[in-house]
Amino acid sequence: MEAVILLSGGLDSTTCLSIAVEEHGLQPEMIQPLSIHYGQKHNVELMAAEEVASYFGTQPLRTVVLPSDLFRTNESSLTGSREMPHETYQELMSGDGPSPTYVPFRNSNLLSAATSLALVIGASSVYFGAHAEDAHNWAYPDCTPEFIGAMANAIYVGSYHQVRLVTPVEWMMKRDIVKKGMALKTPYEITHSCYEGKRPACGKCPTCVERLEAFRANGLEDPIPYDVEGEVVGI
Amino acid sequence: MEAVILLSGGLDSTTCLSIAVEEHGLQPEMIQPLSIHYGQKHNVELMAAEEVASYFGTQPLRTVVLPSDLFRTNESSLTGSREMPHETYQELMSGDGPSPTYVPFRNSNLLSAATSLALVIGASSVYFGAHAEDAHNWAYPDCTPEFIGAMANAIYVGSYHQVRLVTPVEWMMKRDIVKKGMALKTPYEITHSCYEGKRPACGKCPTCVERLEAFRANGLEDPIPYDVEGEVVGI
Repeated sequence: MEAVILLSGGLDSTTCLSIAVEEHGLQPEMIQPLSIHYGQKHNVELMAAEEVASYFGTQPLRTVVLPSDLFRTNESSLTGSREMPHETYQELMSGDGPSPTYVPFRNSNLLSAATSLALVIGASSVYFGAHAEDAHNWAYPDCTPEFIGAMANAIYVGSYHQVRLVTPVEWMMKRDIVKKGMALKTPYEITHSCYEGKRPACGKCPTCVERLEAFRANGLEDPIPYDVEGEVVGI
Repeated sequence: MEAVILLSGGLDSTTCLSIAVEEHGLQPEMIQPLSIHYGQKHNVELMAAEEVASYFGTQPLRTVVLPSDLFRTNESSLTGSREMPHETYQELMSGDGPSPTYVPFRNSNLLSAATSLALVIGASSVYFGAHAEDAHNWAYPDCTPEFIGAMANAIYVGSYHQVRLVTPVEWMMKRDIVKKGMALKTPYEITHSCYEGKRPACGKCPTCVERLEAFRANGLEDPIPYDVEGEVVGI
């Protein structure tokens, strides 16, 4: 096996998979996708991950369930009772600091699980789709280049140099990811991003808004359906 | 809450707890001990962790179960079919590289879970008992100062500066830990170390041997019972 990829079924991780196959030359059957259930309300995303894995012809998706107690806090809209904001991330972030959609230190748990799995199945890399818009203003501190750099070291040293962390969209904004992904014919029509867990997508949560704007910035229309009953933002 | 402590119920983490209370001045009731079940054969250690927590009067022990699939490999004597060696770590390590008792990237998973819990309960530090003898010759790459330094950064940055990693025995050999722990009246009689999961302890696995030697080096007798039917090593 060559790589484990953290695959949520969303736009970023699916683009990472495109890059792994189309640009880094990995054979799909040498890629092990991994989805993590950590108590997210929008776990419908795991169905999209299954479809994406099947589309690319990777190894069958593996799903791991982490104890949701570790992540359940009413300060988070993803795992607790905090209301889901209906704004862009820019409107949301009055200053630096975690977004209401930050899940406590989630990504370190995801990367640790992926690295353990990589060692067990003999894969030499872990792909992870954190990007610059996640990191902007510290919305997600566990997506920043500083966090990624520290984890890359921890993974390389702690695995006795058997596994490296690969983060090809680390320095891209969402619009750059869409541009790159479209050039690589990424099947965005089967991905899921909505934090409300809605299909059709709600079009209002910060991730829907960000996604819609990323397509619009490229002069494109997002191929997934949105709930036109609601006040669809950004298109 | 002030701290989450990773408490296996063994000698190292119990000494860490002594240091937190006796030297760092933490109130026991402000400490949340956390034990992790990751598929270790010697999960009897979790009973010892319960006793230790109760002895110190910390918050009741929390136990988290991680998916054992992530760590099960026949290259490990702790989670797979590899035979438990009956040697000292020094005899075991012909050169640099992981010990047969290394569990794939386990400690990053433990630290990640502890940090998420710290954020959820509002604790500002995570205590972790990795030490110099674990790190020696890269027996446990995820116990080295290089790994610990990387994780300390990942934790501090990824938690948006809410949590710090505290590793007070990082530079001590096992004999130094026993010396320190005895001075702090650490209740070693209720701890468990044996990797075979035996009570009385087997006295043969590398951790039993290391523990026995650490007491002997201090001119002391280990207060826990050993299986005298076997060939008890080191006393």
